Amino acid sequence: MRIAVDAMGGDNAPREIVKGALAAAQSDKNLEIILVGREDRVGQGVSTLPDNVSVVHAAEVIENEDKPLMAIRRKRNASMVVALQMLKEGQVDAVVSAGNTGALMAGASLLVGRIPGVNKPALAPVFPTEDGRGVVAVDIGAAMDPRPENLYQYAIMGNLYYKAVFGTERPRVGLLNIGVEPEKGNELVKETYKKLAASELNFIGNVEARDVLQGQCDVLICDGFVGNILLKGCEGLAKSVMYWMKGVMTKNPVRMTGAMLARNAFKDLKSFADAEDIGGAPLLGINGIVIIAHGSSSPRAVRNGIKVAGEFVKFGINDKIINRVKETGALASQTDLDPAENKN
Amino acid sequence: MRIAVDAMGGDNAPREIVKGALAAAQSDKNLEIILVGREDRVGQGVSTLPDNVSVVHAAEVIENEDKPLMAIRRKRNASMVVALQMLKEGQVDAVVSAGNTGALMAGASLLVGRIPGVNKPALAPVFPTEDGRGVVAVDIGAAMDPRPENLYQYAIMGNLYYKAVFGTERPRVGLLNIGVEPEKGNELVKETYKKLAASELNFIGNVEARDVLQGQCDVLICDGFVGNILLKGCEGLAKSVMYWMKGVMTKNPVRMTGAMLARNAFKDLKSFADAEDIGGAPLLGINGIVIIAHGSSSPRAVRNGIKVAGEFVKFGINDKIINRVKETGALASQTDLDPAENKN
Repeated sequence: MRIAVDAMGGDNAPREIVKGALAAAQSDKNLEIILVGREDRVGQGVSTLPDNVSVVHAAEVIENEDKPLMAIRRKRNASMVVALQMLKEGQVDAVVSAGNTGALMAGASLLVGRIPGVNKPALAPVFPTEDGRGVVAVDIGAAMDPRPENLYQYAIMGNLYYKAVFGTERPRVGLLNIGVEPEKGNELVKETYKKLAASELNFIGNVEARDVLQGQCDVLICDGFVGNILLKGCEGLAKSVMYWMKGVMTKNPVRMTGAMLARNAFKDLKSFADAEDIGGAPLLGINGIVIIAHGSSSPRAVRNGIKVAGEFVKFGINDKIINRVKETGALASQTDLDPAENKN
Repeated sequence: MRIAVDAMGGDNAPREIVKGALAAAQSDKNLEIILVGREDRVGQGVSTLPDNVSVVHAAEVIENEDKPLMAIRRKRNASMVVALQMLKEGQVDAVVSAGNTGALMAGASLLVGRIPGVNKPALAPVFPTEDGRGVVAVDIGAAMDPRPENLYQYAIMGNLYYKAVFGTERPRVGLLNIGVEPEKGNELVKETYKKLAASELNFIGNVEARDVLQGQCDVLICDGFVGNILLKGCEGLAKSVMYWMKGVMTKNPVRMTGAMLARNAFKDLKSFADAEDIGGAPLLGINGIVIIAHGSSSPRAVRNGIKVAGEFVKFGINDKIINRVKETGALASQTDLDPAENKN
């Protein structure tokens, strides 16, 4: 299992990225990690690389400030571009990057290409839930202005992903909406509801935002704009709570003790605030395995990203998606096939 | 100042609604409260009504389970319908209801009508922020599938509301988006961005969901579907945190003490979870003052709703909106003028 890690992508690159990759390589000797990045910087501080880790040189770096599409087109020697090219050419089985998310999405579409019949790839992280099972949310921002057909494909892809990784035979698929009744919501969700209800999926109907964290469904389908707002909104609230907590904690020793105890309750909350646990989000619909780790990546987030990549390879999830999309009918008739679509 | 209160609307009606209305009447003798509802039930447990409180009989009740539009059309003697008719006929200055939100929105459009030139009324609660100022969010679910012109009107109305109530000369207007750059987001927000940037408003650009609670803007503009998901998502997360807190609190006395102390930090959080503080949301764009209190209303939420109604009357906010909409150009050319639009 060969996984290319974009060693230069992310706020703490390359140091923290390399640290996470080395930890992953150490814990699983079947992994072969290829660190892609500037040779002079990737190995810094590392005496000798383990046998299952190698370095492929890439002279340039795509920065977070770079315009995604332009960066992919102009920086042909960037670590991210080189890693995606290796995936395209079959030299690796998957790519993990914590770099510029927009660039990674644009690069994946342009350089690796989409699964035939899929015209809107989707970003699908796992949100933590109260019951600890987690919910796969598709899409949280890869595509803007999707149509009902796209959301139906998200459900097909999310279903196969959840099924493989969590071992659930018929994952409960829910549609994010402002109410539970079928007639609720905007035109997009009303049309999508009909498609999902008529499908072979275990569609449990609409799910309200306040019930997502209670674990009401296993796969949550939403428009990328809405999914992104929900995720970032929760992130913001979690951060505010941590901030308030900190204020309480630092006032006096008694309070500090109290808050320390209460703090244990915030493990799940913290996972929202720092996004480490949801660090490995696959880009579903790309004709190759591309995993986005969080931009402000810690070694743990990188390890998580590599773990998700490994699951995709092991369970052959992309092949399953390719077959299922073929069976359910391609969407090639849609007009918006421009690969530059995901430049946001 | 005459305010009709729908005494039968809300989970705890009429008891808690009447309690809140009486408290409001007691604290402000300039208020004249008209309790609308079943005579035999509204006065239950109340020995004598204060001078500034009266009862208007209405035989029927619109339940939360009722289909909004059908309920408004068929239950002509429902407390909500009678209150809205009184507003239409100028017998009262405002209506406050904690009843079926969908019915209230449909009823407001159908019975009271819209401000000329406005075709999508918007629900505009105040979210709590870290700095304690609060942010007015428009819209959080009154209208589905709005256009850029509608969002521009939300900004005009929200701006006037904030200005009057908070005394800020030029409130900071922000557009909810998935990134700060002008080119981010879906077609709706990209077009809206251009309109707001070209307007006379103090438009500060896009605001990400995670920055809303930090108080980055005073008026937050969003599509009602997205706004509702954000609000409910935060509500859900806040409830999850409370649930976790409770688990910690009940374990042993030491933890209990600790959690009790930490608990103080959760005042703001709690206001999200039970929505009492955001209990009074005006329906902007209706040709009369209609305030929606939260469905699971406590006496405090009802008082808040009456307070907001009072501010609308006192500051003449609706007249200001009417004038400003006239100045900026009506949207009567739009095709979706069906008053049944808000039946969701």
